[in-house]
Amino acid sequence: MLARMLIRSLHCSKFQCLSLRGFITVTPQQVLKPGDVLRKARAFTEEDVLQYSKVSFDSNPLHIESAAAKDVGFQGPVVHGMLVASLFPHIISTHFPGAVYVSQNLNFKFPVYIGDEIIGEVQATNLRENRNRYLAKFKTRCFKNGELVIDGEAVALLPTLTAEQKQQ
Amino acid sequence: MLARMLIRSLHCSKFQCLSLRGFITVTPQQVLKPGDVLRKARAFTEEDVLQYSKVSFDSNPLHIESAAAKDVGFQGPVVHGMLVASLFPHIISTHFPGAVYVSQNLNFKFPVYIGDEIIGEVQATNLRENRNRYLAKFKTRCFKNGELVIDGEAVALLPTLTAEQKQQ
Repeated sequence: MLARMLIRSLHCSKFQCLSLRGFITVTPQQVLKPGDVLRKARAFTEEDVLQYSKVSFDSNPLHIESAAAKDVGFQGPVVHGMLVASLFPHIISTHFPGAVYVSQNLNFKFPVYIGDEIIGEVQATNLRENRNRYLAKFKTRCFKNGELVIDGEAVALLPTLTAEQKQQ
Repeated sequence: MLARMLIRSLHCSKFQCLSLRGFITVTPQQVLKPGDVLRKARAFTEEDVLQYSKVSFDSNPLHIESAAAKDVGFQGPVVHGMLVASLFPHIISTHFPGAVYVSQNLNFKFPVYIGDEIIGEVQATNLRENRNRYLAKFKTRCFKNGELVIDGEAVALLPTLTAEQKQQ
């Protein structure tokens, strides 16, 4: 396992447990605890879909051609599910640079269209220290107008539980 | 559920069951059956990682800075796991344009470095007709030098079981 391999090879670093406070948006020196939620809003553009198609080679017509998307009952071209789901590692690594992704489960429940305002959300559910790093389990969800469009879980190995203060 | 929603809204199209043959690479008019494997090789470049970082906003230093990657025990910058995993929808939609992704589970077991030759593989494990579309379950795996680096499962809704002949 990647996590186990890393845990073995990691050098130790000191971790000082700071006072725990719940947080929705992160402020300096806040320490992640179970239940805490980190969020990021994003609307994907036609250019995003084009650039993602290029880098992933995924040129499924559903993402590019209105007619193909409408043929299967969509309202128009659909943003690649894996591009929308990239919000999760983005949120995690923004607050915990150096985080190593261990696993991600994704259920694509409803389509995301170009221009839709999406809220990506990761919620810590379990945190376990292991040799001065932290194995963190998160609920990972995306919402559109309050409706759950992607549901899943992620596990990442964090270098610390103290979240970076920068906001994106 | 996306699948159920789509199944409800789809218009019907005729499907004629052709003779089934196992296939590793797809030739014209081959019909997918359980056990069949579709593969795609790819080596990710530094430019791929840069472009993916831009479109996903995921600028975790592990993917960009050698020192940060080496700090956690990697040999160098690591390709984003979600970019490597994009091989799966790419393979499926290349052979079945119009396929709708329903779910994807991913376990990132070992790091993928820039330049590594990766074989992405999807293997059909279960195929179920539903109102003239097909709910297909796949084992999804990536290998590096024969070693399993990503393991998982995907479910997609296919417009047909007859694979397109184009190779990529």
